[in-house]
Amino acid sequence: MKGAFTLARRAHAMSPSVLRELLRVVERPDVVSFAGGLPAADAFPVDSVREACARVLADAPTAALQYSPSEGHGPLIDWIVCEAAREGWHVAPSQVLITTGSQQGLDLVGKVLIDAGSRVVVESPTYLGALQAFAPVQPRVVAVDGDAGGPRPDARAERCAAGARFAYLQPDFRNPDGHSMSDARRDEIAARGLPVVEDSPYRELWFDSAPPRGIAPRRPDCTIRLGSLSKVLAPGLRLGYVVAPPALAPKLLQAKQAADLHTSGFSQRVAFEVLRDGDHERRLAGLRGLYRARRDAMLAALARHMPPGVSWNEPRGGMFIWLTLPRGLDSARLLPRAVERGVAFVPGAPFHVGVSLPAASTMRLSFATADAAQIERGVSLLAATIAQALQEQTR
Amino acid sequence: MKGAFTLARRAHAMSPSVLRELLRVVERPDVVSFAGGLPAADAFPVDSVREACARVLADAPTAALQYSPSEGHGPLIDWIVCEAAREGWHVAPSQVLITTGSQQGLDLVGKVLIDAGSRVVVESPTYLGALQAFAPVQPRVVAVDGDAGGPRPDARAERCAAGARFAYLQPDFRNPDGHSMSDARRDEIAARGLPVVEDSPYRELWFDSAPPRGIAPRRPDCTIRLGSLSKVLAPGLRLGYVVAPPALAPKLLQAKQAADLHTSGFSQRVAFEVLRDGDHERRLAGLRGLYRARRDAMLAALARHMPPGVSWNEPRGGMFIWLTLPRGLDSARLLPRAVERGVAFVPGAPFHVGVSLPAASTMRLSFATADAAQIERGVSLLAATIAQALQEQTR
Repeated sequence: MKGAFTLARRAHAMSPSVLRELLRVVERPDVVSFAGGLPAADAFPVDSVREACARVLADAPTAALQYSPSEGHGPLIDWIVCEAAREGWHVAPSQVLITTGSQQGLDLVGKVLIDAGSRVVVESPTYLGALQAFAPVQPRVVAVDGDAGGPRPDARAERCAAGARFAYLQPDFRNPDGHSMSDARRDEIAARGLPVVEDSPYRELWFDSAPPRGIAPRRPDCTIRLGSLSKVLAPGLRLGYVVAPPALAPKLLQAKQAADLHTSGFSQRVAFEVLRDGDHERRLAGLRGLYRARRDAMLAALARHMPPGVSWNEPRGGMFIWLTLPRGLDSARLLPRAVERGVAFVPGAPFHVGVSLPAASTMRLSFATADAAQIERGVSLLAATIAQALQEQTR
Repeated sequence: MKGAFTLARRAHAMSPSVLRELLRVVERPDVVSFAGGLPAADAFPVDSVREACARVLADAPTAALQYSPSEGHGPLIDWIVCEAAREGWHVAPSQVLITTGSQQGLDLVGKVLIDAGSRVVVESPTYLGALQAFAPVQPRVVAVDGDAGGPRPDARAERCAAGARFAYLQPDFRNPDGHSMSDARRDEIAARGLPVVEDSPYRELWFDSAPPRGIAPRRPDCTIRLGSLSKVLAPGLRLGYVVAPPALAPKLLQAKQAADLHTSGFSQRVAFEVLRDGDHERRLAGLRGLYRARRDAMLAALARHMPPGVSWNEPRGGMFIWLTLPRGLDSARLLPRAVERGVAFVPGAPFHVGVSLPAASTMRLSFATADAAQIERGVSLLAATIAQALQEQTR
């Protein structure tokens, strides 16, 4: 065709996200969805947001609706500086950048740190959205082995890390499998040479006790922290942030300006009004209690319904339980049958990097979105789907 | 330093934006600023936004605050489809993507269409933010000659265009110089082979009559349209959109998802409520009248105060007047002295691509932000600055 567009090479590799297509299917009201990573909507502070909107539009309508600085709204930046200080981590406001969700932080980090072919170290499984965010700058992604305590700092990991640009890690209640890194492992990683991009959207969603200090406060000169207000406030405001070493912050700021000029000043001011209204700690406590109860409900339902041979972990925070099917069952093949029965989950394979044999038998279950009754119903339907597949396997 | 971050090659080239640093300086209340490309804040529909927030939080609080589809809010997409239809351009909703400002549209277009070294054709002067948005994917940017009617489709332009990925054009009241492309020139460009990225944020801000049909409706199969709600509603909501040929839309959608998952659902719903409240056409008419009056005020003040040898254009829409100093004067050198007197502008050189002799003598004056009294005062201060420089030149 005359004058047709020519795609960039990177665009040929872009394909509809497995997760996105999935989420589209499971938006049916008759399906109990453990698939989405959606926070509990019944916990959104709607009244506080309503009051915050009114206050912002009364006090500073022009500033809120006009173009605003690329780094973000000053008071919101100061709030993030204070949050860091509570972790014993002293950062300057100029190290903080407000982003359009923490997903944008990943896009900016990729632009500033990755050349085509640069090696990037990840855990496996890891957050699929990070792989997608880095993809346009075409890194070579390598996975390190890990155990329940986090990535293992062994000889193979050292070889992997040699020459890599950074390790992308989620120390707190990792998406997809809810694992957290032990205090000792965080120390070991901080002592090693490789720079770290520490993605911590679930850090505040702990159930029993706060997670160990992050990696950034242990080694602030070569760690970038990505944070999010999506899980503690509301994703629809699209607010995240990056805290970077002083030398790097200006580069991220320039990449941010080129990407979307700045994040909505209205959203930022509304969020700041909600965060400072004095109820944030009480709301967080409520959120932790709600998610803990849902985790407990799912663990109890799994114990009650799952056939022998199915195993799962007991996350101490976050939004996800990671389930492993008996040998020979493939969770992706199971999905359509589960949806037919009325329950959805996310197959584990897409979260894996490199060849990993048990990947196909894993699945991610979110306990955050569904209430206790839906959890009971959904888990029993999922168990029945698995039991039937096992029965067919033995025939 | 052990474990220090290594920058990507593209990041070495990132430097603080000239414009951004400028805007920082001129945020002093005692300086009349013609520098920013800021819409008139007194025209923001604050009451409508307030009512829209209340309505959205009453009717659909959960949906507005939850994660939402990457393509955007359905009714807002439909509104854009209707706007296109009014231009005689029939597009499907699946061709529309809501972006975080139209700046993000540029970022996504770059990711999907530009390989390192790809040739991209631009006008000169052109929108600086487009050059910054494309920079991370490292194109080779080449400028075509133009005249008052737009880029000249001559032999040199044909050579430039050969093998280029697309031409980035602003047919309507171009930033920085307010020029518009003639109807005949639009036809000529639509008839040529090169795909076009048509950036039209100022399209609705016409003063006398609507601009000719865009290029996209003339050649929908190989034109991408970028649009913005920043100029007709409010920039602080960060809402723009892309309309792309059907084959390209899914790629842009995937790039969008990787970049920030989706644009604020709350912002989108609030904007849609404002746009559909029946007052949008009346508001647009008011905005056109306001900007026309300010353009007229600036043209009159320029005629009154400027020393001989200074020339400027008379834009028929948009936000900018383009001023050319007498030979030998450099607008960038003049800026600190102008700011000292109490007026700011943007030097024209950074908007130029390639070597262009008159570039240093040009400047961009925004008539959108300042009121008539400020315009009178600012232009007289600017004229005095120029007159003094001319006097020194002749000594």
